[in-house]
Amino acid sequence: VSLSPESRAGLIEAVGAAWAREDPDALIAYGTDALQTGRPADLVLLPRTAAEISAIAANCNGDRIPLVVRGGGTGYTGGSVPVRGGVVVSMERLNRILEIDEENLLAVVQPNVVTGDLQDAVEARGLFYPPDPASLRRSAIGGNVAECAGGPRAFKYGTTKRYVLALEAVLPTGEVLRTGSKAVKNVVGYDLTQLLVGSEGTLAIITEITLRLVPKPAAQATLRASFRDIASAVAGVSALLAARVVPATLELIDEVSLRAVERHLGRRLAPEDARALLIVEADGVPPGVAEELNRVEAACRAAGAIDLDRAASDDERHRIWDARRELSHALRALAPLKINHDVVVPRGRVPQLYTLIDRLGHAHGLLVAAFGHAGDGNIHVNFLIDPADPDQVARAATAQRQLFEGVVALEGSISGEHGIGLAKAPYLELELSADVIALMKRLKAAFDPNGILNPGKIWR
Amino acid sequence: VSLSPESRAGLIEAVGAAWAREDPDALIAYGTDALQTGRPADLVLLPRTAAEISAIAANCNGDRIPLVVRGGGTGYTGGSVPVRGGVVVSMERLNRILEIDEENLLAVVQPNVVTGDLQDAVEARGLFYPPDPASLRRSAIGGNVAECAGGPRAFKYGTTKRYVLALEAVLPTGEVLRTGSKAVKNVVGYDLTQLLVGSEGTLAIITEITLRLVPKPAAQATLRASFRDIASAVAGVSALLAARVVPATLELIDEVSLRAVERHLGRRLAPEDARALLIVEADGVPPGVAEELNRVEAACRAAGAIDLDRAASDDERHRIWDARRELSHALRALAPLKINHDVVVPRGRVPQLYTLIDRLGHAHGLLVAAFGHAGDGNIHVNFLIDPADPDQVARAATAQRQLFEGVVALEGSISGEHGIGLAKAPYLELELSADVIALMKRLKAAFDPNGILNPGKIWR
Repeated sequence: VSLSPESRAGLIEAVGAAWAREDPDALIAYGTDALQTGRPADLVLLPRTAAEISAIAANCNGDRIPLVVRGGGTGYTGGSVPVRGGVVVSMERLNRILEIDEENLLAVVQPNVVTGDLQDAVEARGLFYPPDPASLRRSAIGGNVAECAGGPRAFKYGTTKRYVLALEAVLPTGEVLRTGSKAVKNVVGYDLTQLLVGSEGTLAIITEITLRLVPKPAAQATLRASFRDIASAVAGVSALLAARVVPATLELIDEVSLRAVERHLGRRLAPEDARALLIVEADGVPPGVAEELNRVEAACRAAGAIDLDRAASDDERHRIWDARRELSHALRALAPLKINHDVVVPRGRVPQLYTLIDRLGHAHGLLVAAFGHAGDGNIHVNFLIDPADPDQVARAATAQRQLFEGVVALEGSISGEHGIGLAKAPYLELELSADVIALMKRLKAAFDPNGILNPGKIWR
Repeated sequence: VSLSPESRAGLIEAVGAAWAREDPDALIAYGTDALQTGRPADLVLLPRTAAEISAIAANCNGDRIPLVVRGGGTGYTGGSVPVRGGVVVSMERLNRILEIDEENLLAVVQPNVVTGDLQDAVEARGLFYPPDPASLRRSAIGGNVAECAGGPRAFKYGTTKRYVLALEAVLPTGEVLRTGSKAVKNVVGYDLTQLLVGSEGTLAIITEITLRLVPKPAAQATLRASFRDIASAVAGVSALLAARVVPATLELIDEVSLRAVERHLGRRLAPEDARALLIVEADGVPPGVAEELNRVEAACRAAGAIDLDRAASDDERHRIWDARRELSHALRALAPLKINHDVVVPRGRVPQLYTLIDRLGHAHGLLVAAFGHAGDGNIHVNFLIDPADPDQVARAATAQRQLFEGVVALEGSISGEHGIGLAKAPYLELELSADVIALMKRLKAAFDPNGILNPGKIWR
């Protein structure tokens, strides 16, 4: 699209000239996210209130101008990329924690609060916001809600959706809505709140979020179990599920990832013959935590763990978690491009998933790092490639399609945390039937009759 | 409506004449649920498969005949009442547990499996399906999903929605859809699964449900705390929340309820001077459970509990739970009609809610029993009246509206578990804005363009 002078003037007026950006650097910077496949916006606006956002939406809707909302820009599927141009609305000025309500165990926040900052603020009051995507020090809570972010603690605590009680949201046609309430149970009409969570910025513009909090666990303890190979570590996961032990987190790290992060941190993280790790955390009241980790240790030992390292102090726990938290950075050193797929299978089928990953890596001659939320069956499969090598790019594309076909055959899903966005839109039909997609498009039209909000995402 | 001979013949053909009911007793029996305000169906059909249901739906849609789905008939808001006549589709022949998948911790069931039977079956395998509505021995899991049922354990475990991973559902236009997957995380397209949960049979006909299970807790222990008055018991709830103690259940029983159930069971349930009870259950690994109940006891004692009774054996636990489970029956002895409202407030505002209830009971001269899920702020407010006394009926109607206005003013919700159905449809506008209701109606039309599925529910 190209904006008419009238459209442009009306849009800038909605926020004031000081809060519009039109220089080429800004247009491309605000048009690019962690997918690293950007497209310049035609105009970037930085509103401060829902009323300003409503005015922007009404303008865009009237003039049929694409409107794309941007939070922290940390999404892996291009959710905030304006693929059809138009206006990028950055939420950066809606960045306040409005309320931490200790009496009712909830928080009211604006969408651009950084998730980790919210966690720090509520933990200082003895409360806890569990979802912990790897990007939590940079990602905005609004983006977490739009994509339904997960993280290691989802194993015990569930993903973002479990914590969203109420939303203020602006429809693309300009109406400002309130969904849900401050009560933890609510069955009044359709669950618009949960429909907006994970809708990838395509249905409405979230301007305020009411989150359920839980008490901060009295104690946390972490265990690192080292295994001789990935098969034994995966057997450890199965043994834990079979023993009905559900700790707070259950993370798996494969050999490629382990070596990369050891190199990155400049220290050994496990015995020399270890080729896979499990990181398990338990939380709750102290005697319960100790007992849970005893059960975890027994299951890991039975599955062939060659080393067990238990940490209770925060310092020691953080040392163990470094192996996981630094992983994304560490892998970037192995190849110029890391294509990160967050596939998910039924939780007992992680062994079959690793067999598939191994087969794809060998068949297509690709370096693959596969780690992640094994307890949830949600593994981050990273193809590490050189984008300048067209043959490698083509092989990665084939492997990617076969990976998605494989997880669907295992009755899983092509995305557990990152969403479809732009990156996975070509693969939607692998998982969803034509009737389901047609219904979703009718829902989209019920929110956004002119299709102005984040077009080109989920489907093309 | 009256069915044309052609419509009637086509509908009966879809299931076979042996599975259609047209006698007047059946038409009214299948048209009445626990709301006790029925309306006869024009035809009752008992299909066995999704394909048969698809044929029924296509017929009804083509001929614009209302179609109402019926499960266990235990709903309190008239969700299965055919208020505009038409066809009642009873799911009673779709009553099988199709699969209990221990490896992946899930179950696949047909909608008319009785919730309690499912719980027994999975607990025999060391697994656990937490949602426990009071009707669990009679209500169908499909109805639990359609209404998003809760229960005492929702305090720790959440309501039905947290356990529904995937659905097979038939659209009113006949398409058979599959939503979700067997993976515990799934962000592929809009969350149709969660949209259908709690949609009160107005969007689609659920024919198969895939449920997430959790490991059965290794230990459970129950505490009954007796208080001198309701204010002290409510203070006990606040003290627990302030102490950040979150057991598995936190139930509150007021004096009217306590005396009714003591009379019903023919035994004393608490010391003579007790006028309110809390029933608290903790579960998990044994040392954690013991420690949690220690914290609960300390908080209750500080709030003025006059007696604490802890039970760990199943027999003793069941004796404590009898006071709660028999409550609905016991209250029926107090008055010919019990109008049960499942209002909910932010969890810290239970004291304000009890102040409101007390005020309404006095102002309108009504006998009120108010008990329930105090930890969730979800209290069942029962007006106990004689429907033959028109003045009492009118006063109860006024009190009801004031109750709903009061919970909305407390930032709560007019229904936490039972849904809106027919009974609360006149009050929807108290909680939802005109823009929100308009959007919900557009969503309804996206599923059900001719409005044949359960018309007259949620809104009139």
